[in-house]
Amino acid sequence: MATIKDVAKEAGVSVATVSRTLNDNGYVHEDTRKLIKDAIKKLNYKPNEVARSLYKKKSRLIGLLLPDIRNPFFPELARGVEDEMQERDFRLIIGNADEKKSKELDYIQTFKQNNVIGIISATNHTDISHYENLSLPVVFLDRTSDKYPSVYADGLEGGRKAAKEMITRGCKRITLLRGPIEVQTAQDRFQGAIDMLVKANVNFNVIITDSFAFGDAEKWAKELFEKYPDTDGVIASNDVVAAAVLHEALRQGKAIPADLQIIGYDDIPLSRLLFPPLSTIKQPAYEMGREAAKLLIRLINNEKGFEKNIQLPVAFIERQTTRKVEEHG
Amino acid sequence: MATIKDVAKEAGVSVATVSRTLNDNGYVHEDTRKLIKDAIKKLNYKPNEVARSLYKKKSRLIGLLLPDIRNPFFPELARGVEDEMQERDFRLIIGNADEKKSKELDYIQTFKQNNVIGIISATNHTDISHYENLSLPVVFLDRTSDKYPSVYADGLEGGRKAAKEMITRGCKRITLLRGPIEVQTAQDRFQGAIDMLVKANVNFNVIITDSFAFGDAEKWAKELFEKYPDTDGVIASNDVVAAAVLHEALRQGKAIPADLQIIGYDDIPLSRLLFPPLSTIKQPAYEMGREAAKLLIRLINNEKGFEKNIQLPVAFIERQTTRKVEEHG
Repeated sequence: MATIKDVAKEAGVSVATVSRTLNDNGYVHEDTRKLIKDAIKKLNYKPNEVARSLYKKKSRLIGLLLPDIRNPFFPELARGVEDEMQERDFRLIIGNADEKKSKELDYIQTFKQNNVIGIISATNHTDISHYENLSLPVVFLDRTSDKYPSVYADGLEGGRKAAKEMITRGCKRITLLRGPIEVQTAQDRFQGAIDMLVKANVNFNVIITDSFAFGDAEKWAKELFEKYPDTDGVIASNDVVAAAVLHEALRQGKAIPADLQIIGYDDIPLSRLLFPPLSTIKQPAYEMGREAAKLLIRLINNEKGFEKNIQLPVAFIERQTTRKVEEHG
Repeated sequence: MATIKDVAKEAGVSVATVSRTLNDNGYVHEDTRKLIKDAIKKLNYKPNEVARSLYKKKSRLIGLLLPDIRNPFFPELARGVEDEMQERDFRLIIGNADEKKSKELDYIQTFKQNNVIGIISATNHTDISHYENLSLPVVFLDRTSDKYPSVYADGLEGGRKAAKEMITRGCKRITLLRGPIEVQTAQDRFQGAIDMLVKANVNFNVIITDSFAFGDAEKWAKELFEKYPDTDGVIASNDVVAAAVLHEALRQGKAIPADLQIIGYDDIPLSRLLFPPLSTIKQPAYEMGREAAKLLIRLINNEKGFEKNIQLPVAFIERQTTRKVEEHG
């Protein structure tokens, strides 16, 4: 059976370098990493995880806290985290906190009890004090934070983009669906959209919503067309809500996008499968997950000199619930 | 701070019964469990997990292996598993094997290295030998097995139902999309549908598919209408594939369900948000997850005398991609 020495010899590097690579402990050049990987594969070398854990007195478990994996934004996010962790030989304990503080606290405690070495939290209702005495690195994901490292998409810019695209396409009476007040990223995109609409002096109304659930969104869609029947543009709080609005509009016989234009937020896989396919603002969920994992690993390894608050860009995805720019009149 | 004795006194039971309840170790009556739960809540009793683990020399970690959490069938399944486990104070390590044997084996090994006390596997390409020398209870989920405990929905019956509903609604030239050959549950539903169509002497064609991915399904939808343009009924391998077919049919100007009826499989959350909303065969994904968790806990606790292969029923969900029964001529 191959030993770490065999791997080092095959790769032409020192045992320490192989060890550093295996343990993600300190810098190893990408090319060297490749050589070591190839050697490990060729020799079918299996590092002894338990022995390694004992030696380092550490597990390789990471806690990932989500609001609800059934919200279609989060599987992408979670896969991003997992794929990066898996490649670096870490494993994930996953908990869904359902935006309940007690459940979040419960998961944080059991993460600790299971000796996780870091936590990524994508919850929104967080009581920040839950994280204060943890003595573990924590990264907030899909969420801004002054005090903690975080990875998030540019919500203000996303909201501005959404409004700008609707204005450019001739919308005169826009209705916005404002997402849950406690979800900061939803409020950022709402604020960005409002800023742009006010600046452009375009009329708008607002429907207040308090969740991203399918069933609730169907009610708000009905409310929207009852209260503001002359709406010619809808800026939805996310794609699920946009899908419910689209659905209700079609049921009422509105032509999309001739009578009514709709823009979503997130670009979940559902969005391109709607008919007509949904125009939306894409958040790079998978990449956000990857970046959060990378950031947490840097913190675990006590690296120095890297950016601790990572903002990723958003993009307008033009599909068929918005008009072509040359069409509006 | 409350002790286990305080809890026992408050609930009016023995310390042993409280301990048994906390450790899911042996039978405790539902009513007694409720009394103990209430007492724990009232006294804010926190059992010491680490001490308990040490004493029992066991973790409370469960490994859950999925094909890909991004397939919208699996978040429901995973939440079912998690909710049951969370209520019973177990935690999940989750891995996505992407239907790759090497990744599956890798996750099984790391589950073991992290001292999981049981595994639930929902993968399809499994090499059964991966599980043979584990000395851990294993439950297969969304999959039939002779050798292992399993929880699955009745695929044969699901396929029969799908075909029967299409025949009842007047379809004469049905095209079936056959799901990936290595996914046994997909083959069961395909087989069930074929059995019913042959029995009813209805014409049908088959499109072979090898994945459930959105992008691939769009290609097969095009192929379907090129090869079999006079199709008046489509039995899709799952809802995602049905969505792609629906999308392509609308793009080609077909009236749904007047010209073409479509039935999906799974009843993922997407399905009711399509336009028209998708008729489909519902698999009770969330309940399947719950049942698999319950079954695994029974195995972990060495209980006796319970059913080890649990088949859950499927149901026809009538929406608007199929005609009302009285409408067909």
